[in-house]
Amino acid sequence: MLLHSLYLVAITAEAMTAALAAGRRNMDWLGVGVIACVTALGGGTVRDVLLGNHPLVWIEHPLYLGITLAAAILTAFIAPVMKRLRTLFLLLDALGLVVFTVIGCNVAASMGLPFFIVVVAGMITGTFGGVLRDILCNRTPLLFRRELYATASLLTGLLYLGLQHAGVMHGVAMVVAMVAGFAMRVLAIRYGWEMPKFVYQEDWD
Amino acid sequence: MLLHSLYLVAITAEAMTAALAAGRRNMDWLGVGVIACVTALGGGTVRDVLLGNHPLVWIEHPLYLGITLAAAILTAFIAPVMKRLRTLFLLLDALGLVVFTVIGCNVAASMGLPFFIVVVAGMITGTFGGVLRDILCNRTPLLFRRELYATASLLTGLLYLGLQHAGVMHGVAMVVAMVAGFAMRVLAIRYGWEMPKFVYQEDWD
Amino acid sequence: MLLHSLYLVAITAEAMTAALAAGRRNMDWLGVGVIACVTALGGGTVRDVLLGNHPLVWIEHPLYLGITLAAAILTAFIAPVMKRLRTLFLLLDALGLVVFTVIGCNVAASMGLPFFIVVVAGMITGTFGGVLRDILCNRTPLLFRRELYATASLLTGLLYLGLQHAGVMHGVAMVVAMVAGFAMRVLAIRYGWEMPKFVYQEDWD
Repeated sequence: MLLHSLYLVAITAEAMTAALAAGRRNMDWLGVGVIACVTALGGGTVRDVLLGNHPLVWIEHPLYLGITLAAAILTAFIAPVMKRLRTLFLLLDALGLVVFTVIGCNVAASMGLPFFIVVVAGMITGTFGGVLRDILCNRTPLLFRRELYATASLLTGLLYLGLQHAGVMHGVAMVVAMVAGFAMRVLAIRYGWEMPKFVYQEDWD
Repeated sequence: MLLHSLYLVAITAEAMTAALAAGRRNMDWLGVGVIACVTALGGGTVRDVLLGNHPLVWIEHPLYLGITLAAAILTAFIAPVMKRLRTLFLLLDALGLVVFTVIGCNVAASMGLPFFIVVVAGMITGTFGGVLRDILCNRTPLLFRRELYATASLLTGLLYLGLQHAGVMHGVAMVVAMVAGFAMRVLAIRYGWEMPKFVYQEDWD
Repeated sequence: MLLHSLYLVAITAEAMTAALAAGRRNMDWLGVGVIACVTALGGGTVRDVLLGNHPLVWIEHPLYLGITLAAAILTAFIAPVMKRLRTLFLLLDALGLVVFTVIGCNVAASMGLPFFIVVVAGMITGTFGGVLRDILCNRTPLLFRRELYATASLLTGLLYLGLQHAGVMHGVAMVVAMVAGFAMRVLAIRYGWEMPKFVYQEDWD
């Protein structure tokens, strides 16, 4: 129940920040809606297509598609206000990251997949919506260069599964993992933490 | 029957315009063929992958793949002539848009999916071939910025389904929807109609 | 057995060259790992998603994912040495191309698909890992512009299937096809061979 409520908050927040990204590319209203849907629902879609897990979430529950579309249209109207809500949306985006990660782990675990794949499924769910958004907007995906974005997803998944393996109750493991991942992401933004970068200058091909 | 004939015309036309796009990127002949196939058959492929609807059309009917390849190669030979056929190909492209949309709606409807998803399936079929082409050519997809391209697809799908729900005969609903979507797209090109754009300048992330 | 050993060599080599590409984009360590996995395993993944062939190879064998990740991390450490191994890696990359192609043909053939689709499945397996890498790194896929890359894959697939149809023993057909494709690719790099390019300058859309 808690996870489901957080999921609805998360797809709404992701849709709204994606709508702003589309606005910066001067897309028309329909384009804004498409970018919002791809960003909010794309991570779970990639996960389910790779796992062969049909029907997709938004095909079974078209309401989620409707929510993201409505959030995107709303954003175009209240864009001037959103600037002042920047901090709120960074927090909601971090929330979405950990919520999507936990949901992705749950889906893969319920299919009986091995530990390593469950963690990867969580990371794909958490991060690939943003990757698809960046590809559609024709820019290098920020994912791999931004403050511990994928790393916070990885931490959430590892903690969530590790605590369960260690015998911690499911609900407790979930909350602890989400709080830890959320805190890592927010602190990384606040203090500019980054993963070590691999910088390579030689011209290879 | 009519729809099938129009489909063959549409994939041929889409393959030929895609081949010109590949030529502008100085791709080799094989690259031209790949871009043509992705553009002509990519919308239906994305739809079927998302719906879990296997086998894909071109895997069951490799002939369609052969037609697009042949059309692409032909284009490289007759490119100088195509310049004078520009208007014809813009019309054929608009035809492809509405034909693909109607076919996409039919596929989703035959799977018993809800109204909203049927419309979305039509739009994906109509427009995602062009989106994939633009991604492979590394440019921001034109879809969301061009004269009512996705909007004409949306109109076609809504009319097609709405008229059927209203009791209009299937064949009549199809023709009316296709003519309306085709007219909207052609008039939009002629008079430069566009959807309202969402322009947002703040630097957010 | 030979094919399986070559496959492990090939995904390792592809992961290492992909890691260098990620390093040139200043990605962090996790980004390097993702790019490596997508490049080494992406061709087979696209093939299986299109064929509806689940579970995917790396989901059934997470070890392959582990190998590519380990190879990517290793690359970040030994990057200065790799510059001197440039020729070796160009050879291993050519090996990967023909190995992936043959494996892709085998998968499609074992599903009873027609000749044309088997060849296409081989080409997708051989080349789409690199296409996905280029899309994620936001550059026009090199595939269609580089020295006979896709063409060598096509030659390998056609020879492999053609020789089998002509009654040549399976193992012999495989080795001959792989040697021919490998030789074409290496000679194309050495002598700068290219497919004819389709260059088109008119501004169409």
